[in-house]
Amino acid sequence: MPPPPLLLRNVRPLGATAVDLLVQDGRIAALGPALEAPAGCVVEEGGGALLLPGLVEGHTHLDKTLWGLDWYRNEVGPRLVDRIDNERAFRRASGHDAAAQSLALAKAFLALGTTRLRTHVDIDTEAGLRHLEGVLRTRDAMQQVQQIQIVAFPQSGLLGRPGTAELLDEALARGADVLGGLDPCAIDGDPVRSLDLLFEIAQRHGRPLDIHLHEPGAMGAFSLELILDRTAALGLQGRVAISHGFCLGDLPERECEALLARMAKLGVALITSAPAARAVPPLLACRRAGVTVLGGNDGIRDTWSPYGSPDMLERAMLIGLRYNLRRDDELAIALDCVTEAGARGCGFEAYGLAPGCRADLVLVEAQTVAQAVVARPPRRLVVSGGRVVAREGALLPGVVPA
Amino acid sequence: MPPPPLLLRNVRPLGATAVDLLVQDGRIAALGPALEAPAGCVVEEGGGALLLPGLVEGHTHLDKTLWGLDWYRNEVGPRLVDRIDNERAFRRASGHDAAAQSLALAKAFLALGTTRLRTHVDIDTEAGLRHLEGVLRTRDAMQQVQQIQIVAFPQSGLLGRPGTAELLDEALARGADVLGGLDPCAIDGDPVRSLDLLFEIAQRHGRPLDIHLHEPGAMGAFSLELILDRTAALGLQGRVAISHGFCLGDLPERECEALLARMAKLGVALITSAPAARAVPPLLACRRAGVTVLGGNDGIRDTWSPYGSPDMLERAMLIGLRYNLRRDDELAIALDCVTEAGARGCGFEAYGLAPGCRADLVLVEAQTVAQAVVARPPRRLVVSGGRVVAREGALLPGVVPA
Ligand SMILES: [Zn+2]
Ligand SMILES: [Zn+2]
Repeated sequence: MPPPPLLLRNVRPLGATAVDLLVQDGRIAALGPALEAPAGCVVEEGGGALLLPGLVEGHTHLDKTLWGLDWYRNEVGPRLVDRIDNERAFRRASGHDAAAQSLALAKAFLALGTTRLRTHVDIDTEAGLRHLEGVLRTRDAMQQVQQIQIVAFPQSGLLGRPGTAELLDEALARGADVLGGLDPCAIDGDPVRSLDLLFEIAQRHGRPLDIHLHEPGAMGAFSLELILDRTAALGLQGRVAISHGFCLGDLPERECEALLARMAKLGVALITSAPAARAVPPLLACRRAGVTVLGGNDGIRDTWSPYGSPDMLERAMLIGLRYNLRRDDELAIALDCVTEAGARGCGFEAYGLAPGCRADLVLVEAQTVAQAVVARPPRRLVVSGGRVVAREGALLPGVVPA
Repeated sequence: MPPPPLLLRNVRPLGATAVDLLVQDGRIAALGPALEAPAGCVVEEGGGALLLPGLVEGHTHLDKTLWGLDWYRNEVGPRLVDRIDNERAFRRASGHDAAAQSLALAKAFLALGTTRLRTHVDIDTEAGLRHLEGVLRTRDAMQQVQQIQIVAFPQSGLLGRPGTAELLDEALARGADVLGGLDPCAIDGDPVRSLDLLFEIAQRHGRPLDIHLHEPGAMGAFSLELILDRTAALGLQGRVAISHGFCLGDLPERECEALLARMAKLGVALITSAPAARAVPPLLACRRAGVTVLGGNDGIRDTWSPYGSPDMLERAMLIGLRYNLRRDDELAIALDCVTEAGARGCGFEAYGLAPGCRADLVLVEAQTVAQAVVARPPRRLVVSGGRVVAREGALLPGVVPA
């Protein structure tokens, strides 16, 4: 049942002049001065607050999070393999509940205005599809109020543990939206065989790809070229995303530019958490080249990292800090990474503040978009699919079925 | 008049086992289980909250901030000189009030638990000592509840505008605590003459030095050596600090190590904002070498940068992100930069949670120090010099004279 009509009075879309905004059947019906409230309409006074479209999380790991649990004392070694092994051991010992944890974090995201979200979910031969099942349950529970895309993610690599490919296959059959991948050189040790197999699985299910590429410099560039070759050969324009792509941050400029041009041509998006401690793809050069760049937390409060937050305005701020975006027009780019570009890169439809878009709306106390990014003010109101779902940072009762 | 005795019940110092803490005459008198409340004692129930010492801001610019004003639309060019010129033009046009602005920000710092703070204050031939006068007024207003060190800072350089040296001289005579400096090569163009003059002024007043050193690589290392030469020659061990020291982030390792060894020997502290977008001094190597590293925001919400926050736990988090500090023992280092090391580097006395220390205390809802850094929980209670000054992030009425 669609929600009743909703009229938001006196709100400033992305900081523009104040208007009223009418929602009908869960979609934006009209924006303009002094709109008339139809019969049975719920009216919300915006008080001149800044209106943002629902925020978009482009890359997280809902299944891993320890959000809301006792503090996890991190004593892990520094290598990737240390972290993978530590997590596996922790899960064995803790009986980690991916359904409960993913739901807790998804709700925290929604309360802070994130209405669309892409999450990777670990698929491996030890856990099987247990995490997927948990996150599928969360996706169902949130269905009315938050669009969740699930990436079937081979966290332990695709080739190293026989049976992984079959599990990914089954994950897609059971409802994962996207096929994930991971470092075909550094983790799988056989990039051609790894990527051939990965693309073959994606093709079989007609699903897009989102590949974690941590490999630095020349190695990462090599893997990226192999990915782009297969994207072109299989006609997957606009269906492939690279997460992290750290290599793009430490290549000679001309090599980087050549890769970006190829990515743009093939519609390959780049998803970044803008980590402060490593080389990152050049945001402005990516955008100039025509590559869609979107933002994500990566893991939040898990055995990998204590950092991260379900506040996508905080992620936009961290993107701003990482790329030294200080001017107001630059801070609008940081916001774009967690709004428009986020939706475009993930393929979320009917996104934005125009009539016809899904009414995913966030009201914050800020004068400008730049201030919203920098100050991360409280979310006065969050609307999802035309329903008021949160006020002052807290979900309303009954929004998510118990 | 000293505040009445105060007993904090059931608090966990830096996450240790819960104790009671007794404050008398503004100082910590005792820590232990089930302390007895003396007559006339105010009792606060801590409820097992985490107890931190008052937070320390090692480097900010209270006089520049636009905190609490209408949003400043930043359209500034990217070079240092663009920013200096833009600020000067803005001040001319806006009638910027350094007294009111510095007070607003100092109060925001205190409400979030910062009880000691070092601020640079612009001294130049255009503004004269106007900013100093404003911040001196703030220092007076906050005297009971926040220790503010003022650095007389030649933002436009020492040599370029005749009369600047005389103004710095007068600033120290009028009550500035520390003499500031700025890029003797890149800004002043004559490093030997610039530093000779700077050290001469500091010597005349017997004041410590805190020098902004943005110069990168070899140029910065060159200036740093000149600073260390003068520190040694004039017997200023423990009296000189370097702010930023970006050059230490992009030198060959052995050159960097040699400089760090010399800094440690001369007791030269390093103050960093841990910017995400540039090379930074190697935090762990600095500490291993024996160099005190402390944290600061640099400017907060001003014409230079929209970023920064009066929450020093947020600065600790940004330090953690910049240096990829993920383990609990590493996050304790991030906290150290805004607590113990901060106080040591600035020379704030009677600092800490031991008996005899000034009772500057912060209670937060966190299980561990690591969680306090990462989650930046609300400040349940802030005590300064034995007085309760803030609850739940808000200053109590009457704490700062109107
Ligand atoms: Zn990830
Ligand atoms: Zn500064």
